[in-house]
Amino acid sequence: MATKTHTGNFFEDFTVGRVFRHAVPRTITDGDVALYIALTGDRRPLHCSQVLARQLGFAKSPAHDLLVFHIVFGRAVPDVSLNSPANLGYADVRFLRPAFPGDTLRAETEVIGKRETSRPEVGIVWVHTKGFNQRDEPILQFYRWAMVNKRQPDTNSGANDAPELPSQVAVEHLSVPDELDLSRFDAVVTGGSAFWEDYEPGERINHPQGITIEDAEHQLATRLYQNNARVHFNQHLQKDSRLGARIVYGGHIISVCHAISHDGLENALRVLAFNAGAHANPTVAGDTLYAWTDVLERIDLGRPDAGALRLRLVGVKDLDPSKEPIDLKATDAESGREAYHPNVVLDLDYTVLIPRRR
Amino acid sequence: MATKTHTGNFFEDFTVGRVFRHAVPRTITDGDVALYIALTGDRRPLHCSQVLARQLGFAKSPAHDLLVFHIVFGRAVPDVSLNSPANLGYADVRFLRPAFPGDTLRAETEVIGKRETSRPEVGIVWVHTKGFNQRDEPILQFYRWAMVNKRQPDTNSGANDAPELPSQVAVEHLSVPDELDLSRFDAVVTGGSAFWEDYEPGERINHPQGITIEDAEHQLATRLYQNNARVHFNQHLQKDSRLGARIVYGGHIISVCHAISHDGLENALRVLAFNAGAHANPTVAGDTLYAWTDVLERIDLGRPDAGALRLRLVGVKDLDPSKEPIDLKATDAESGREAYHPNVVLDLDYTVLIPRRR
Amino acid sequence: MATKTHTGNFFEDFTVGRVFRHAVPRTITDGDVALYIALTGDRRPLHCSQVLARQLGFAKSPAHDLLVFHIVFGRAVPDVSLNSPANLGYADVRFLRPAFPGDTLRAETEVIGKRETSRPEVGIVWVHTKGFNQRDEPILQFYRWAMVNKRQPDTNSGANDAPELPSQVAVEHLSVPDELDLSRFDAVVTGGSAFWEDYEPGERINHPQGITIEDAEHQLATRLYQNNARVHFNQHLQKDSRLGARIVYGGHIISVCHAISHDGLENALRVLAFNAGAHANPTVAGDTLYAWTDVLERIDLGRPDAGALRLRLVGVKDLDPSKEPIDLKATDAESGREAYHPNVVLDLDYTVLIPRRR
Repeated sequence: MATKTHTGNFFEDFTVGRVFRHAVPRTITDGDVALYIALTGDRRPLHCSQVLARQLGFAKSPAHDLLVFHIVFGRAVPDVSLNSPANLGYADVRFLRPAFPGDTLRAETEVIGKRETSRPEVGIVWVHTKGFNQRDEPILQFYRWAMVNKRQPDTNSGANDAPELPSQVAVEHLSVPDELDLSRFDAVVTGGSAFWEDYEPGERINHPQGITIEDAEHQLATRLYQNNARVHFNQHLQKDSRLGARIVYGGHIISVCHAISHDGLENALRVLAFNAGAHANPTVAGDTLYAWTDVLERIDLGRPDAGALRLRLVGVKDLDPSKEPIDLKATDAESGREAYHPNVVLDLDYTVLIPRRR
Repeated sequence: MATKTHTGNFFEDFTVGRVFRHAVPRTITDGDVALYIALTGDRRPLHCSQVLARQLGFAKSPAHDLLVFHIVFGRAVPDVSLNSPANLGYADVRFLRPAFPGDTLRAETEVIGKRETSRPEVGIVWVHTKGFNQRDEPILQFYRWAMVNKRQPDTNSGANDAPELPSQVAVEHLSVPDELDLSRFDAVVTGGSAFWEDYEPGERINHPQGITIEDAEHQLATRLYQNNARVHFNQHLQKDSRLGARIVYGGHIISVCHAISHDGLENALRVLAFNAGAHANPTVAGDTLYAWTDVLERIDLGRPDAGALRLRLVGVKDLDPSKEPIDLKATDAESGREAYHPNVVLDLDYTVLIPRRR
Repeated sequence: MATKTHTGNFFEDFTVGRVFRHAVPRTITDGDVALYIALTGDRRPLHCSQVLARQLGFAKSPAHDLLVFHIVFGRAVPDVSLNSPANLGYADVRFLRPAFPGDTLRAETEVIGKRETSRPEVGIVWVHTKGFNQRDEPILQFYRWAMVNKRQPDTNSGANDAPELPSQVAVEHLSVPDELDLSRFDAVVTGGSAFWEDYEPGERINHPQGITIEDAEHQLATRLYQNNARVHFNQHLQKDSRLGARIVYGGHIISVCHAISHDGLENALRVLAFNAGAHANPTVAGDTLYAWTDVLERIDLGRPDAGALRLRLVGVKDLDPSKEPIDLKATDAESGREAYHPNVVLDLDYTVLIPRRR
C-alpha cells in the first residue's frame, strides 16, 4: 500500500510543462457571498444589490471578484503550495468573466518556470493558473511564483528557468463584462462622488478605517476558500515558528485592505486585473490593518460609460499611515538591499473599472 | 482635487430637514439568515422553517426582524454616526412589513432635531430613518438620537430643537403582516406553552442562558450589516480608549439578548415595535450576557388569532440576574443623578406579536 | 403563573417510552452549507459541486451528512441534554436519506432506557432520536446515551434499564441514496487515487493537517445547529468549572476531525453510519486537533459501483500522532480501569460509501 495522504509537491516535482487539474470543483452560493461580506465588510455595490446588478445589465449579482480569486486560488493550493513557505508574487492576473452564485468553479495550473536560489533547501516555482466555470469558460487567470521546499534539501538541480512576465496587464487584456452597461449608473447607490475623470495619477488616498484581524476570522475565510495551507490553521505547529503564531492567508489581507479602500473608491465597480502584487510582511491575529491607495494611471478603455484606473493599494499593520507617513521601502544600511518597511503587509498594483462622468 | 474619503458628518452638518439617501442597497439572502442564526443562536421559528412560514400564510420564510433592523441601520451609519461616540436612544421603531431573502433594502434618513449639550465638543442629533424594499414599500421606520462630535469642538450653535417623540408605538401603528394567519398555529413547532393570555403585566421572566461575546463574533455580525463605525473594529485605535477595547455594536447586544429571551417567549413570532431603547453601558469581548424580561402590557389587537405583548428586555453583563437580582437604576449619592446599574447593557421596551389560545 | 422558562428535563423526567417532539423545525439553506465549509474546511465533493452532484444522479448538491446530523441533534438538545454534563456514546446511527438545501428537518426522541450510577447526583439515559424531512421521510436515526443530572441529587430510583444496542450498524441497514450512481464517478474531482479495493483492514492513515479551535468558531458552529447546551457558550459560568473554559460541542470535534480526514479518504463520498462513538476527553479553545484513521473493515454492498469502509477516526489534541504515536487507551495503575489517553478527544467507529475501481 502506498501512502494515501498528500504530502504535497516539492520543488523536485515541479517540471516545466506539468499540468495539474485541481480537485474539488466549488459551486459559489449566496452563502459564500454573505460570508465574504461578514469577513471583510466589503461594500462594493454589485454583489450587494440584485437591483443594481440588473439595472447595469447582469441577470443577477455577480460574486465579488476577490471571492472568485480566492476560490480559484484555493483549488490550486493542495497541488502547488502545501510546501511553500511564502508566495512571492503575482503577475498578469486577469479577471476575465464574472462568476455568479450557482456557477461551479474548477481550476488548472501549469508549471512555467523554476529556479534554484541561494538557499539550498528551497527553490522558486512559477505557475500559471486558470479558473473555469461549468461551461468551461475561463473566468480568471494568473501567474504567481512561490518559494517551494525541496524534498532533498541539499541538492541543486541547476534549474534556472525564470519566465519573463509582463509588469502590467495590457489594456487589450482588460475584460469588461459584455452585459455591463454603466451608462445607467447612478452614484447614489455607492455614495461616491468621484468618477474616472476625478482621479489623478500621483494622487494618494488615505483610507480612514482600521480593522483588527482575529484568528477565527482569517481561519473562517481561508477555510471558506478551502485553502488548506497548514501555516494558517495550526497553532500547535506555529508556536515554535519565528512568528510564534498562525500566519494570515495573504488573500485575506488583500480582501480586507480592498474593503478598507472602498472609502474613496466607492465607484470602482469591478476588479479587472492585478498587475503585480507582493505580501511584503506577514500578518498575524491581533494586527490592525490600515491602507492607502496611490493612483498610478488613468486608462481609457475607448468607451463612453467607463474607464479603468491603475491603483497601488498598500496595506500597513499597527500604524495609521494617514497619521504617521512611512516610506514604503528602505535600503538596509548593512546589506544594501531594498526592503519593505516592516509594517507594510501588502503592495498590490491592480486595475479597476469605474464609470465616467456623463 | 477634493478629498475623496468620508470623514463622516459632524454636528455642524446636521441641519434640520436635511435628508440622506444612504448608499449601497443590500439584497438579503439565505446566507444572511444562516449567519444571523450562527451569530446569535436565535430560534424564533418563522425564519427557521419554510414549512411553518407557509403554514402561517407567507410565501416563504421572512428574514428575522432584527436582521432587517440591522441592515437598515447599517445603511445609515456612514452618513449619520461615523462621528458618534454613543447612540442614546430609539423611539417609535415600527416593523412595517416583513422582508424576505431576495428583497433588496435601501434606506433614507431625515434630520429632525439637534441640540447642544453641556459638553462643548458634542451635540445631540435626532434622526428619522426609513427602510424600503425594492418595490419602495416601507418595511421599517425608526427615530434615534445620538451624540455626535463637532468639527469645531468649542463652538456653540445655540441649537435646541429636541423633538417630541412618542414614548410608545401607538396600537394603531402596530402592523401585522396581511398574509399572516395565526389561527393555524400549533405550538409544538416552538416548544412554548404560553400564549398571549398567559402573560401578566408585572411578571418577570429570568431567561436561563448566558452567552459570552468574542471579538470575531461581533465583528462578523457588524460587518454583515455593513455597519462600519470605527469603534467596533480597530483595536489599534481602541487600545488607548477608556475601555481599552473594541466596543460591541449595540444592535448585536439586542440580537443576542433577544435570542436569549427565546426561552420563556417561544411563541413571540414577530417584533412589531421598539417603543424605547437604551444601550445602558458598553459591552466588550469577553463579557457574558444574561437577560430578563418584564411583561409591561398585554395589548388587544382586536383579532382572534393573536395579540401583542409589550415587554421590557434587560441585558446584563457578567452577572446572572436570576441569582443576583439587581436594581436596574440607582441614584448616585454625589450627583443625585439616576444611572443604570454598571452591569446593565440594554434596556429595551418593545412589542411582539404572539398567538392567542384557541 | 407557572414558570415559562425551560430548566430542561432531569433524570427523573425520563420515563422509558416517553416521546419528545422537538421544537423549531429547521430549513437547511445554502447559507448553512457555506458556513459548514467555513467552520470545518470540509472538502468532501458532493456538497461542494452542483455539477458533480448532478453527474452522480442527484437533482442538486445534498447537504453534508454531518451538517444534517448536527441539525437533528440540535433539535433534541433542549428536551434531552440541557442538564447533561456529558454525552457518553452513540450507537446505530444511520444516515437514511440525503437532505438538500430547501428541506426542512424536524426530530423526535423516545426514551429507551435509564439506569442509576455509582454517583448519587446523576443517572444515565438512553434515547432514540429520529430526524425527518418535510415529507415525513426519515433521514437520520441514532441512539445515544448521556449522563443526566437529577433534580433531587440524593434519590435512587433503582432504575436499571440499560438497553442492548448493536455494536455496529448492520450491512442491511446501510442506505445508499437511490439516485446515486457511482459508475460515472471520476476521481479527478476529488484528487484521491484510492478506491474501495485499495483500503486494507489494519491500515492506518495519519492525516497530516492540524487545526486549532477558537471560541468564536465552535460557538458559531454550535449556534448554527441551534444546540443551546450551556457549557458551550457561557464563560462566566465555565470559569469556575474544572476546565475553566467553555467546552467545545463534541459534534464540532467530529466535523473538524472528519474534515482533517479528507486527506487520505478523498473518495469517501458519503457517511452511511456511525457504529459507535465516544468523546474521550473534552476540547477547549486553543486546542489543536489532529486525527488518524484506522481501516477496520471493507464491506461489500453487492453493487459494482461502490462499497463501504468501516473506519475508526481518532481525534487527538495538542500532539501530532504521526510524530508521537500514542496508545489509544491505557490501564490506570491504581484503579485498574482502562481509560483513553488524555490527549484523545474522539474515537468514532463509522462507515462510509466509496466508489470501487472500474
